[in-house]
Amino acid sequence: MKKFRLFTPGPCAVPEEVLLEMARPFHHHRTDWFKDYMKQATAKLQQVLCTQHEVIIITGSGTAAAEAAIVGCIAPEAKLITLEGGKFGERWGEIAQQFGLNVVRQKIEWGTAPDAALVQGLLKQHPDAAAVMVVHSETSTATACDLRSIAAATNAAGKLLLADCITSAGCLPLKPDEWGVDVVITGAQKALMLPPGLGFLAVSPRAWQAIEANRNAHAYYLNLVKARKMAREADTPFTPAHLLVRGLVKALDILLADGMETVWKRVAAMAAATRQAGEAIGLKVFSKSPSDSVTALCPPAGLAVKDIRNELEKRYGIESAGGQDQLKGKIFRLGHMGYIDEMDTLLAIGALEQVLHRMGHRFELGAGVTAAQKVFAERL
Amino acid sequence: MKKFRLFTPGPCAVPEEVLLEMARPFHHHRTDWFKDYMKQATAKLQQVLCTQHEVIIITGSGTAAAEAAIVGCIAPEAKLITLEGGKFGERWGEIAQQFGLNVVRQKIEWGTAPDAALVQGLLKQHPDAAAVMVVHSETSTATACDLRSIAAATNAAGKLLLADCITSAGCLPLKPDEWGVDVVITGAQKALMLPPGLGFLAVSPRAWQAIEANRNAHAYYLNLVKARKMAREADTPFTPAHLLVRGLVKALDILLADGMETVWKRVAAMAAATRQAGEAIGLKVFSKSPSDSVTALCPPAGLAVKDIRNELEKRYGIESAGGQDQLKGKIFRLGHMGYIDEMDTLLAIGALEQVLHRMGHRFELGAGVTAAQKVFAERL
Repeated sequence: MKKFRLFTPGPCAVPEEVLLEMARPFHHHRTDWFKDYMKQATAKLQQVLCTQHEVIIITGSGTAAAEAAIVGCIAPEAKLITLEGGKFGERWGEIAQQFGLNVVRQKIEWGTAPDAALVQGLLKQHPDAAAVMVVHSETSTATACDLRSIAAATNAAGKLLLADCITSAGCLPLKPDEWGVDVVITGAQKALMLPPGLGFLAVSPRAWQAIEANRNAHAYYLNLVKARKMAREADTPFTPAHLLVRGLVKALDILLADGMETVWKRVAAMAAATRQAGEAIGLKVFSKSPSDSVTALCPPAGLAVKDIRNELEKRYGIESAGGQDQLKGKIFRLGHMGYIDEMDTLLAIGALEQVLHRMGHRFELGAGVTAAQKVFAERL
Repeated sequence: MKKFRLFTPGPCAVPEEVLLEMARPFHHHRTDWFKDYMKQATAKLQQVLCTQHEVIIITGSGTAAAEAAIVGCIAPEAKLITLEGGKFGERWGEIAQQFGLNVVRQKIEWGTAPDAALVQGLLKQHPDAAAVMVVHSETSTATACDLRSIAAATNAAGKLLLADCITSAGCLPLKPDEWGVDVVITGAQKALMLPPGLGFLAVSPRAWQAIEANRNAHAYYLNLVKARKMAREADTPFTPAHLLVRGLVKALDILLADGMETVWKRVAAMAAATRQAGEAIGLKVFSKSPSDSVTALCPPAGLAVKDIRNELEKRYGIESAGGQDQLKGKIFRLGHMGYIDEMDTLLAIGALEQVLHRMGHRFELGAGVTAAQKVFAERL
């Protein structure tokens, strides 16, 4: 008997009932049947994302949604500032470059978060910038920024804020309308508990103005003007991955039955428990500003990340993530998104203890799960 | 009791075992588990598409795959000729325009097919053209061209041929390598018997040269250079809709168990049966060069397409397609792709007879199914 447990920070575990929902017989997508799913999906996405902004569903990955936002919002004559503190931040700068846009790519030390002061400074330096793009939760470094204060800075300067919320939407507190986030970008396979294949955008009226005014957008499949026109009729410009839309409605129902405040609280507790457990068994938390949706831990001296991850998988079927690029071999990551609750998290910590113990790491067996239990008892 | 039958020319019916395959628990996509599915999927796609050309899998619709091909192959300084005899042909010209490419958009009367003579003439007129883009089976008009002779014309002139095979791949005879088709574009939700969400490309070495040389491609998510690099490691540059890739392997197994010659023969027989049945009950076939993957029939005088389609759906759960744009209200379409066999086709013809009879159309009841039965007995 070997059970399988998906703890990667996306794709994340999907409820069995969502998978079965998608296995049911389906109709054509240009029908009232599908329009009803689209209406439900967009309305429920608005609730989960705490926004009244228009929501767009794209068949593609989170990167496709981000490309739609960048190419749509940033006209060739405009300037974009990207804040790059990890692999995903860098990707958004690369997209802007690929499309020949005027982009200021601000590097940030991996494992630290950009803040409002940095943004204010950059906007003073580049008063001609039209927009700032930030990663709310940088998955590659497991680092979250204070999106609210960054939004305050961009709003004070009258600039658009594009936020990669791919691993924050549905798991970290996020209030785009209240905070002034113009474009929220997210994807299916993270906290929204769906298999990969859909990207989502919530776009403010101000951002729509920029998009509508941008006549030179190099976008057809990812054209937001077209997408908005169709979305207003609960439709899509191109054939959507409509089974995933159906699954989405079911997945969002599960999240909304709990309510977002409850979900955020649970995710925060799972992350705190993982960090405290890690420290209790002698593992350093990598990030100086850790995200609650994914935790990056540094391996104990002398043990290889690869071996720890292999053992977790071989013994307990736990799929974790390693580090990418400059963090390869330096961290391993456990997600707190998707169909995971606090007892799943306890299980993962328990497995980590067993594996490290057998690999010769010296620590007090049980210290990790005990630390986690205390966090859960206090916070939930 | 009301049964449901999907006869639209995409999305098409999907085998139950494919849907259930996708409902099984899944792993992360950056794993050997998924690489194995990718290897199987690409190898089997090559068999189904009768090609040795490198195959690329894109998460998106067929339009996404077409955009990748156009933007990838056609450099800003190059010229593309698009042959536009329907809604999809027009879409490819629109994409080229949206990206500011130099495009000659050749209009063709809807319901007729472009031929080699037309292509030769256009290439004489535009000797600077780098490529021609043609629709093998134009779904909107249910019209197929002779792709083989068109490929002979583009090859003789040393030009690239991009072919929209979205409703031909897996159902009409197609031999890209033998014929000299440089880019085959197709999608999941047609003859490949999958729900929507994936697009596919088979790209010739000559087309790869053009793609690699094109330094100004406005493509990131749909960048074929990146996609090829990853595909060679059985991987994808961005998170793929990996459940669909798993379903694809199962669906392709079903097609390959029959063998493509058998599949092509069955599809041709279903189309011939539908056309002959249509004529036997007084319905005109719209196209002058009908595709075997979808049939467009004109309604009898005095009856509205909308009413016929509604009755088919209400009484027998048969979902058909209407006409688009200039053909709205003038045709209705029945697909022969996907998980449909000859007895399903007989059923659809029978339902059409019942519906037309009740609506007051005068014809010999049973003439349609009889004509179909004869076709099946002769051809299969």
